[in-house]
Amino acid sequence: MARIVMKFGGTSMAGIERIRIVAERVKHEWEAGNEVAVVVSAMAGETDRLVNFCREASALYDPREYDVVVSSGEQITSGLLAITLQAIGVPARSWLGWQLPIRTSDGHGSARIEAIDTTALNASLADRQVAVIPGFQGMALGERVATLGRGGSDTSAVAMAAAMKADRCDIYTDVDGVYTTDPRIVPRARKLKRVTYEEMLELASVGAKVLQTRSVGLAMKEGVRVQVLSSFVEAGDDPEPGTLIVGEEEIDDMERQLITGVAYDKSEAKVTLAEVPDRPGAVAAIFGPLAEANINVDMIVQNIAHTTGSTDVTFTVPRAELPRALDVLDKARGDIGYSRLIHDPRVAKISVVGVGMRSHAGVAAQMFTTLGARGINILAITTSEIKVSVLIEEDYSELAVRVLHTAYGLDAEDDAA
Amino acid sequence: MARIVMKFGGTSMAGIERIRIVAERVKHEWEAGNEVAVVVSAMAGETDRLVNFCREASALYDPREYDVVVSSGEQITSGLLAITLQAIGVPARSWLGWQLPIRTSDGHGSARIEAIDTTALNASLADRQVAVIPGFQGMALGERVATLGRGGSDTSAVAMAAAMKADRCDIYTDVDGVYTTDPRIVPRARKLKRVTYEEMLELASVGAKVLQTRSVGLAMKEGVRVQVLSSFVEAGDDPEPGTLIVGEEEIDDMERQLITGVAYDKSEAKVTLAEVPDRPGAVAAIFGPLAEANINVDMIVQNIAHTTGSTDVTFTVPRAELPRALDVLDKARGDIGYSRLIHDPRVAKISVVGVGMRSHAGVAAQMFTTLGARGINILAITTSEIKVSVLIEEDYSELAVRVLHTAYGLDAEDDAA
Repeated sequence: MARIVMKFGGTSMAGIERIRIVAERVKHEWEAGNEVAVVVSAMAGETDRLVNFCREASALYDPREYDVVVSSGEQITSGLLAITLQAIGVPARSWLGWQLPIRTSDGHGSARIEAIDTTALNASLADRQVAVIPGFQGMALGERVATLGRGGSDTSAVAMAAAMKADRCDIYTDVDGVYTTDPRIVPRARKLKRVTYEEMLELASVGAKVLQTRSVGLAMKEGVRVQVLSSFVEAGDDPEPGTLIVGEEEIDDMERQLITGVAYDKSEAKVTLAEVPDRPGAVAAIFGPLAEANINVDMIVQNIAHTTGSTDVTFTVPRAELPRALDVLDKARGDIGYSRLIHDPRVAKISVVGVGMRSHAGVAAQMFTTLGARGINILAITTSEIKVSVLIEEDYSELAVRVLHTAYGLDAEDDAA
Repeated sequence: MARIVMKFGGTSMAGIERIRIVAERVKHEWEAGNEVAVVVSAMAGETDRLVNFCREASALYDPREYDVVVSSGEQITSGLLAITLQAIGVPARSWLGWQLPIRTSDGHGSARIEAIDTTALNASLADRQVAVIPGFQGMALGERVATLGRGGSDTSAVAMAAAMKADRCDIYTDVDGVYTTDPRIVPRARKLKRVTYEEMLELASVGAKVLQTRSVGLAMKEGVRVQVLSSFVEAGDDPEPGTLIVGEEEIDDMERQLITGVAYDKSEAKVTLAEVPDRPGAVAAIFGPLAEANINVDMIVQNIAHTTGSTDVTFTVPRAELPRALDVLDKARGDIGYSRLIHDPRVAKISVVGVGMRSHAGVAAQMFTTLGARGINILAITTSEIKVSVLIEEDYSELAVRVLHTAYGLDAEDDAA
């Protein structure tokens, strides 16, 4: 017997036919004698519908009332899954955020879970009842409804698993696991059996959108064993094993690789300030105003100072924020003192990730060599302990992913071999 | 300054444009210095959508989970109205059923309101904040979400008005008041300025669907002054005065009439059992099994015993229940011992209602004479203290309503006169 949290997303909850498939999957785990809590998203499209109502009502909506409106999507699916489970002979009940309760911070619209009371829930599980819990919601100060921000149901599931001391948190998604890279670009991409929390965090931060970043951080902090697996399973069948996200100590040496995955991200844009005076405080004059405007700056390169005593500063910002960033920099031109403002949205960030690179110095060098051999120009570089990222021209991004995937030995073996 | 409850139905809440009109109406009352609580229905069509999800999930759905699902419709509109009020400068917040709380009985799906805690609400109203309250919902034993049954938002509004000791409960509807009869049948029907609780109850029970019957009974019990008025008002304008529903003592003699209104109801069907043995226990053998099957029997006529020692028994049942009723009676044939089972769904019940008839013996006689003069055959009769109902062939129903409306002096004066 194990204690399991299962989480299903909006595609899995889109209509009663889909919910019936989910119920069969839950029944399968329950019949095996497990204690099961299920965390559900709203039906696909429902949260957008509700968010649009709020925006239409007022551009400056009260986030506390927004939370009352948008939390109803998960309320509906949790009641419907409980009914559907009962219909196939599985005792079940829904537990709304305020009923457990799931206590959150006061940050309506993007609240953080602070504490979950599991007293009533544990009694119900001990009674062989399946608990159905709406994701994305909780109760803030003053008994107000709170939501966790978009994609928050993954976080709800991990937080429930931590509070319940669950043996496993199974997150059912549209993909069947975490891959070495995007299989649409590299057909020989391989599904990973295990990946560490740190690697998953780095992969999520560079565009591999399997799980919400916040949920991975929470899983790491709480030591929750998360499994990503496919929601497309025939009723009654066991699903294919997905990818387990675990602590580094659970990855044994045999399966440890230098590089776990290659990711790409086309959501950034490059900005260059030409001929910035090379004096103390110049960098603060650039990045201070951007920070005040809440614009995240990612990769930063400062070119070697010209003989003229000035320097070029290049960095990236989210592509969606580019117009605002240019506006901020234009207004700060007097303070910064650059000669020209150059921008290019057609760039891509390519990253290689792997805990193995900690003990291996050659990873970055191999990356530059591999890309250089294909004539791919590197515009900027950033590194973390387990990640090396380079900025390149967008047109080369698929080629770069493919050659790096091969260079680090990630390609699956040829079936015909 | 007065304390007012305003209630808006699903048509008024169907989309943000409509909700904005409601918000303007609320603002108008609030700006006049009143303390205002608003009770809202779900968007038109939303409750049906949610009910259908539950039915699709399971014909035998758990009513506690059904309540979780269907109560979300009013949760959405209450949050949206609060946002819309804030957008036009009116401080407002939503109070969900569990937040006040509104405590209900355990009868999920058709719970009764038992107690409303107004402590927090009163503090909020004193603070010049408008309270937006989802109709139709409350919290039952064990902190479970409960709903009051279809049309329950009228009852929520009256119960809120009683708990808050409100001066008035204004119910905004698709019609602009209570009429002497259906204006589609009698163009000269007049809007009533006042009507007593008892009359309203009788009118509701015979087909005048302005308010939910239960809400009128509650208003009578609690002495809540209810006003029915039109939700179709230009923003900023005062609405036309509607119909006030009040205690008998508030109707002065000048405006008191013998008959207040004429109503019709085509929802019943006639059943006749021919040649039932005329012995003790015969009637129990008929109506016992129907009661066990939860089928309401309304008008009952037992014809004079034949010389053979048998009798014909005629009664009405809801038309929708006719097949089940016939089935029950067929199975009980041995016990009852009738010779033939005759049924006819094409009947109508015509009723005249008025507190004035208590002190006036001739009302029923005038009704029979009036109908007889037009050759309309009376199939059955029932009377209460303030109502006389007759069952006639359905084809004659409009004619009967029209001639009775004229006979009791209810026609409006001719504009051209």
